Amino acid sequence: MPEYRAPIKEINFVFNDLLTIESHYQNTPGCAEVTPDLIEAILEEAGKFAATVLQPINAIGDEQGCHWDDGAVTTPDGFKAAYDQYKAAGWTGVTFDKAYGGQGLPYSLGTALSEMVSAANSSWGMYPGLTAGAIHAIAAHGSDEQKQRYLPKMVAGDWTGTMCLTEAHCGSDLGMLRTKATPLDDGSYAITGSKIFISAGEHDMSDNIIHLVLARLPGAPSGTKGISLFIVPKYRIAESGDVAANDNKENGVSCGSIEHKMGINGSSTCVINFDNAQGFLIGPENRGLNCMFTMMNVARLGTAMQGLAIAEASLQGATAYARERLQGRSLSGVKAPDKAADPIIVHPDVRRMLLTMKAFTEGNRALGYFTAKEVDIAHRSTDKGEATKADKALGFLTPICKAFFTETGFEVTNHGVQVLGGHGYIKEWGMEQLVRDCRITMIYEGTTGIQALDLIGRKVLADKGEGLRQVIAHIMADMEKLPESLSDYKKTMMLTLAEWGELGNSIGKKAMDNADEIGAASFDFLMYSGYVCLAWQWANMAAAASVKIAQGSDDSFYQGKLQTARFYFERIFPRAQTHKNTLLSGAGNLMAMAAEDF
Amino acid sequence: MPEYRAPIKEINFVFNDLLTIESHYQNTPGCAEVTPDLIEAILEEAGKFAATVLQPINAIGDEQGCHWDDGAVTTPDGFKAAYDQYKAAGWTGVTFDKAYGGQGLPYSLGTALSEMVSAANSSWGMYPGLTAGAIHAIAAHGSDEQKQRYLPKMVAGDWTGTMCLTEAHCGSDLGMLRTKATPLDDGSYAITGSKIFISAGEHDMSDNIIHLVLARLPGAPSGTKGISLFIVPKYRIAESGDVAANDNKENGVSCGSIEHKMGINGSSTCVINFDNAQGFLIGPENRGLNCMFTMMNVARLGTAMQGLAIAEASLQGATAYARERLQGRSLSGVKAPDKAADPIIVHPDVRRMLLTMKAFTEGNRALGYFTAKEVDIAHRSTDKGEATKADKALGFLTPICKAFFTETGFEVTNHGVQVLGGHGYIKEWGMEQLVRDCRITMIYEGTTGIQALDLIGRKVLADKGEGLRQVIAHIMADMEKLPESLSDYKKTMMLTLAEWGELGNSIGKKAMDNADEIGAASFDFLMYSGYVCLAWQWANMAAAASVKIAQGSDDSFYQGKLQTARFYFERIFPRAQTHKNTLLSGAGNLMAMAAEDF
Repeated sequence: MPEYRAPIKEINFVFNDLLTIESHYQNTPGCAEVTPDLIEAILEEAGKFAATVLQPINAIGDEQGCHWDDGAVTTPDGFKAAYDQYKAAGWTGVTFDKAYGGQGLPYSLGTALSEMVSAANSSWGMYPGLTAGAIHAIAAHGSDEQKQRYLPKMVAGDWTGTMCLTEAHCGSDLGMLRTKATPLDDGSYAITGSKIFISAGEHDMSDNIIHLVLARLPGAPSGTKGISLFIVPKYRIAESGDVAANDNKENGVSCGSIEHKMGINGSSTCVINFDNAQGFLIGPENRGLNCMFTMMNVARLGTAMQGLAIAEASLQGATAYARERLQGRSLSGVKAPDKAADPIIVHPDVRRMLLTMKAFTEGNRALGYFTAKEVDIAHRSTDKGEATKADKALGFLTPICKAFFTETGFEVTNHGVQVLGGHGYIKEWGMEQLVRDCRITMIYEGTTGIQALDLIGRKVLADKGEGLRQVIAHIMADMEKLPESLSDYKKTMMLTLAEWGELGNSIGKKAMDNADEIGAASFDFLMYSGYVCLAWQWANMAAAASVKIAQGSDDSFYQGKLQTARFYFERIFPRAQTHKNTLLSGAGNLMAMAAEDF
Repeated sequence: MPEYRAPIKEINFVFNDLLTIESHYQNTPGCAEVTPDLIEAILEEAGKFAATVLQPINAIGDEQGCHWDDGAVTTPDGFKAAYDQYKAAGWTGVTFDKAYGGQGLPYSLGTALSEMVSAANSSWGMYPGLTAGAIHAIAAHGSDEQKQRYLPKMVAGDWTGTMCLTEAHCGSDLGMLRTKATPLDDGSYAITGSKIFISAGEHDMSDNIIHLVLARLPGAPSGTKGISLFIVPKYRIAESGDVAANDNKENGVSCGSIEHKMGINGSSTCVINFDNAQGFLIGPENRGLNCMFTMMNVARLGTAMQGLAIAEASLQGATAYARERLQGRSLSGVKAPDKAADPIIVHPDVRRMLLTMKAFTEGNRALGYFTAKEVDIAHRSTDKGEATKADKALGFLTPICKAFFTETGFEVTNHGVQVLGGHGYIKEWGMEQLVRDCRITMIYEGTTGIQALDLIGRKVLADKGEGLRQVIAHIMADMEKLPESLSDYKKTMMLTLAEWGELGNSIGKKAMDNADEIGAASFDFLMYSGYVCLAWQWANMAAAASVKIAQGSDDSFYQGKLQTARFYFERIFPRAQTHKNTLLSGAGNLMAMAAEDF
């Protein structure tokens, strides 16, 4: 397994030199106490935990997987112990409300923690990750009583949570779901149905599991407008607020089986059966999907960060190998005459792969943390106008981060294998696990295709381009600040921004005649948008590095940023043009073929 | 596991309508008896064997893997029985010389067999595949006595073969290898050293294993010019030609361990230790690498076909799923009003993935079989000029097929997973195995990076563009034959051909100043070349389909070819421009960064 070191210098560069995080926190309600010292302490400690506790059990989790026995699921060796440590150190509650025992720290800081966790052990990170989603949903839509009942235990990590959406016959199309909720006399509901692909649905790490379950009330409208959201605890809860005594605790929730998957083997993926389980309505009747979206947006950014995080782990492994592995000689003259061969990092094609990995990983990090800062503002700002603007940008950027970080993250992990050659394919080296673990991120929390439809359909067309305009405004303001030495990037970006808006318009116009034009353009529009956003971030990083160099810094880290920015603009950004040309070809070349001729 | 059906109609389309295979065989020495009836019988029988014997044990092979116990390797359940059946049916000898018990059928026909085998079970296919490589090497470089001793048993499948190149410290850079060969009094050699990553290095399927081993003679020049090739049987061979009697059979060859890999788990990947093993020099002293190249070129085409084959299996699985899975409604109007939802094949983005899979798989097949036909001519034609031309084209196309079919094959298998969504990630469905099995094809037999250097360095620059010119001549001749209705494709291709030649020249010119320009351009030049070759094949397929339609065929298969060609030109071929623009950016953006700043 490649050794993981938390990229604290990289994170600090983004926080300090791109996002001026200190003044951001000073201006954000409830964040005044987040001083540079506190940030440093959190990054250091989280990094240590990830590297020394989580990473060593990552390969073990892959090798052993989870085990199902008569409804009980055992997680791999070390997973529970690591969770206990995590809980004891208070990490479960870092970003949650102090009222429920959390530390109330901003989402953006939590993002750095979650990056480190996922990079070190993305399977393990699913357990606290799903819990965080459930906490968000209860905090946003639960009654006061529900919040009091569930949140303190969940924030403390004693209870974990899940999202129960998918059924065997419905994944992306939730309108088809069949799980039933029958009202009971005491105001609660009897939930009956079977859910599949439930991450952290059953395991041995917590005292209770709080399922958030989508189900239909009797007589509810068909489709997505007849779905309600319910809280269904694995074990019933007594008046005391603790899990009920043994005789009374069973709640008709059982784990029917777990899946055997390509990767994230340490994460239990469960069939969860609800058999007249007692559930509690959360949020309004038939508005369950809207409530669930609260969880999903956060969950989507979480998945985006997984894509980035796993890519970072791969980048570290590949870079270390390329510096050490001796093989062949540089064509432009021997570089290590004292050795039997040159290290493979001398070869241009190895550098092409490493720089691609670096450009995506660091670029995605910059964009991801920018987006996390928008979450801080959208959720906390008392300036309504500011909050709304941030929310628009956030809505627009979320599907881009989810799909682009995971698609490019998967590309990165595959380059990581390729840099190691044959060794990359051998389990022992750990690089191939990263490919398998990353592969799911393009699927769960809405596939790339679903994100692409969300972006062009909801966030551009339905929203009349408001989110896009917000992001373009950010980019234009940043481009104004570029130093003269980067005027080429500025020129490129200004032309691109005009093109981006036009592309959105042109899809909208075509869609008026043929709704399939939306789907036909969606993937390429999303990827185009991702490449544009990364160009923006690389221009920003180059600008920040230029400032440091102008101030006299001789840290080659900043030269590295300038060099990677150049690589990005010259060797990666051209892909945006392919996506543009491809999407402009329209729906005809996709829709002409009869289904039976495929 | 997705059910596999041999794509016989597709193969016949390529053989008959693109390659006019009947007249090709009539004109090729030794192939006159390959009549359409014989071709049909072979395709049918091979397809049946692949689908009913090999495919059912593919998931078993993945699940069980191979087992090592004190030097002995057991293959998964059913592997040996399938091999016995394969041998009994005479498949092992299909393309080999009748003098050694083969059937003497042309290489191109063997290619169809090997496609089917790899599509149904690529792990299993490694055992006969490696043997074929070893047979080629012995046939090309062995003495008469060596041929008589080894080939009949190998052609019959009683003995299998391997290629022993890699050592722990040397993979791509064979010049560093250390295995020693010490001359013995009887003219044989004592071979000592350890080889890794030896596919089919040890297993339970054959009576003996004939290793072809690269090693150094005493005092040999350092680097690649001091390597010789040896035949080293696992068991010593008695005068009778059979494996020696028990007491005398051990030859100092042992399997130290097997690797645990990302995929192709049914294929044993061995550490093979040679401890004063008796070996026999094959070919001239110190020319071992050249002899090994004979095997490698064939092996590279074989690996190319694996990439294509695994992609075909994925295409079949994804297409079947997309036709059946009901999820969501078409945005342009309900397509299956009698069902709870439309099948997902109505969605443009699902079609984008399926058509991408189809365009690569069918395009690669057309190019692969064209290349196989060049092998027939290069190896068999009595017209020296013809044979040389074919050999040049073959040399140029081999690295393209190897790298492009495997890179795009891997893309295809990933689309295959994505079409199935969450189910794609679950082992039971078999789609993720195809991703893992395909992943190795970009690495073994020379990574994509090695192929790319071979193409631009050896096949374009060192060869002064002769292979490129041969291929361009083929394309121009084909473009002359396009019907008027396809004149857009012709125009595009003619512009592209000029560009292709210029790109090669421009890299050559830059390389005179800086040798790193070769490596910096290599990958993008190879991928560009691959996209151009597929455009050529899609233009040809559209032309062949147009002929059928003009002749009155109402088989929608031909409309499908026209539609896929259009998809390719409008949605895939634009990628070539990105590769062009990227490679034109030169080596500067790759070489500037110091190794420690990565």
